[in-house]
Amino acid sequence: MKNSFIIKADICYSKNSKEIKTYKDSYLVCQDGYSKGVFKEIPDIYKSLEVYDYSGNLVLPGLIDLHVHAPQYKYRGLGLDLELLEWLDTYTFPEEAKYSDLNYAKDAYEKFVEDLRDSSTTRAAIFSTLHVESTILLMDMLEKSGLITYVGKVNMDRNGADNLEEKSFDESSENTLEWLKKIDGLYERTFPIITPRFIPSCSDKLMENLSKIRKEYNLAIQSHLSENQNEIAWVKELCPESKFYGDAYDRFGLFGGDYKAIMAHCVWSNDEERELLKKNKVFIAHCPNSNMNLSSGIAPVRKYLDEGQNIGLGSDVAGGIHLSIFKQISDAIQVSKLYWRLVDQTCKPLSIEEGFYLGSLGGGKFFGKVGSFEKDYEFDAIVLDQTAWSCENLNIRQKLERAIYMSCDKDVIHKFVRGRKIF
Amino acid sequence: MKNSFIIKADICYSKNSKEIKTYKDSYLVCQDGYSKGVFKEIPDIYKSLEVYDYSGNLVLPGLIDLHVHAPQYKYRGLGLDLELLEWLDTYTFPEEAKYSDLNYAKDAYEKFVEDLRDSSTTRAAIFSTLHVESTILLMDMLEKSGLITYVGKVNMDRNGADNLEEKSFDESSENTLEWLKKIDGLYERTFPIITPRFIPSCSDKLMENLSKIRKEYNLAIQSHLSENQNEIAWVKELCPESKFYGDAYDRFGLFGGDYKAIMAHCVWSNDEERELLKKNKVFIAHCPNSNMNLSSGIAPVRKYLDEGQNIGLGSDVAGGIHLSIFKQISDAIQVSKLYWRLVDQTCKPLSIEEGFYLGSLGGGKFFGKVGSFEKDYEFDAIVLDQTAWSCENLNIRQKLERAIYMSCDKDVIHKFVRGRKIF
Repeated sequence: MKNSFIIKADICYSKNSKEIKTYKDSYLVCQDGYSKGVFKEIPDIYKSLEVYDYSGNLVLPGLIDLHVHAPQYKYRGLGLDLELLEWLDTYTFPEEAKYSDLNYAKDAYEKFVEDLRDSSTTRAAIFSTLHVESTILLMDMLEKSGLITYVGKVNMDRNGADNLEEKSFDESSENTLEWLKKIDGLYERTFPIITPRFIPSCSDKLMENLSKIRKEYNLAIQSHLSENQNEIAWVKELCPESKFYGDAYDRFGLFGGDYKAIMAHCVWSNDEERELLKKNKVFIAHCPNSNMNLSSGIAPVRKYLDEGQNIGLGSDVAGGIHLSIFKQISDAIQVSKLYWRLVDQTCKPLSIEEGFYLGSLGGGKFFGKVGSFEKDYEFDAIVLDQTAWSCENLNIRQKLERAIYMSCDKDVIHKFVRGRKIF
Repeated sequence: MKNSFIIKADICYSKNSKEIKTYKDSYLVCQDGYSKGVFKEIPDIYKSLEVYDYSGNLVLPGLIDLHVHAPQYKYRGLGLDLELLEWLDTYTFPEEAKYSDLNYAKDAYEKFVEDLRDSSTTRAAIFSTLHVESTILLMDMLEKSGLITYVGKVNMDRNGADNLEEKSFDESSENTLEWLKKIDGLYERTFPIITPRFIPSCSDKLMENLSKIRKEYNLAIQSHLSENQNEIAWVKELCPESKFYGDAYDRFGLFGGDYKAIMAHCVWSNDEERELLKKNKVFIAHCPNSNMNLSSGIAPVRKYLDEGQNIGLGSDVAGGIHLSIFKQISDAIQVSKLYWRLVDQTCKPLSIEEGFYLGSLGGGKFFGKVGSFEKDYEFDAIVLDQTAWSCENLNIRQKLERAIYMSCDKDVIHKFVRGRKIF
């Protein structure tokens, strides 16, 4: 049977945001790309399946990156001395402009896709640039990688740079339609997603058009929300009729509800915005590393969990430095401790269980039944080599802790996405 | 000539807390263990020296770890769900008690010393446990490693655990004297340092004795200060006559002045304490990773720099997770941004230059003329392989940025300490 096999290893996954399930030396069954659960002994009906023996290694569901900018990978770890808006103008826009050159894009995206493939991430929601051809190039590469991703050609018809802006809402809309037509039917694992960069980059007319296109093609949407205080003030100026930042998306029907939406950051979302996020089941992409680097602040993740928001993690490269979602989990836990200590002592720090949930099942929900090994979940798994961290005498929860704090992604030795062995 | 050679590479070091010096494709001269400076061409007088050609690699002064607990290395990245005092009782004291067993100590310290040797650190101030024999074992291993370190047998005669406490101030003092006598004359690169664990662990009488021993042997001292708010409240209870936490050391003459002192953390030091730190030239070991993990808070490093305090970085393993001082530099920069954003907008975030200064020259001053390649500084250097980070077209400052944000210590390919090639 295609994509059917058994993994023998130490196994761990999130049951919910509070609990993990751990299984020492057990058998994880994948049938036709779906998990059939974890067993102490191989059930008779699966006895014919091939067994990958990863005894002693830790196997986790693949991690989920809900927010990453592929064209920013090349300059990660550079120029982190500015806040968001100045950072975009100074570093981001000049770099993204280079992706009009397909050769430049090819070299840079090859490295990005290679490193993403080798990382702990199995699924991601990705921003490209506004360029149609290089976006398609990126999607081609991602499809070949075996990862499952959403990719958005970025829309921006105002407040960009001379060489990084679509000339009108019409041009931006037409580019989007051209892109969608060109990729129609090409991919099994790579999906388009409507991607207005953020409110300051998109005129009202563009937002109206994107909303129509979204409906026509029945697509999801991804964008940025309430990352930085100056950004929020600017949105207020640009959209005086909006009650709050999220409302500026919602009034165009680009804020989730009966379709899927990801909003990155939500560092400064007020009560009304949080209510609408919840009502519309928007996925919050918490990006703690980026929120430190760009001096944005700390998102109140404890509140989001208590409210039952949809929430996962984003690397937000290159606001964030590392593709590793393990790194985002440890950062999320660490900044939640500072939030408790310095901002609001009613917001208890995140536990290991909660951090892991955010990076796996929490973000996985955006992709469907993903991010767990419970029966009938799509089978994404990573196999970790932990020998460098002296994990011999640790229990599985401790091995998970070490992975969260110490993994740098080079320790991912095998990877499966929807049952397909990637390496 | 012994320990004399030339390195050809891209070279960078701190001139002061605000400025770095960068030299592309240049020659760094080491004579008899001391730097003779950096040159575009090899000066005639050095033409006979051997040249190590590390062209294309980045060479930096060795980094300095002002605060690390060797016996905690084994459980790094585990049990970070408690604040300081509960964390000590629950995880630290039971683990440190095991170091009465020399076989246990040998295995654990071997791994610690091996990893420290392979890291970006060339010099460190280290806590062992209260055990004399295993402390000597650790010092033997460190001496062989070629690193230059201060090591403290820990003193604690109260508020420890049943199996981790010296029975009286007399026993603790005698143990300390026994230790000092046994190691007398043994080492060239490994120095004893008086190490009262912290005020809650040491009775007044013990502190009096330690002060006498310190004077008699002319030693430096290291301890912890104002890390956690509950700890500070406890010190107030234990020492009602002290004006502030630092004063509880100072009234016993254990807070620097005419000899060297390191105080780790200083997260919550008040104005009076900061004045005394400055007056006594105490070295502050800023440990940002640990201060996040144990929910301690963020030290006001901007204030310390502006006040002209002596300050460097500490990994504080296992409150901190990583031995890498690069990691401490990036954490220091990141939390300084959160401090600015969330606590005090008069405290500007740290720059790359300032972070690098803290991890090299800032901490290096504790060891003398260390942490720089200026003429007549002791020659500690690390050579970084940056090929994995695509640094080809970057300038040297950008290469430094990438090292700070992306190094995981495995990229240190050569290391020199006081002119001796370690690997």
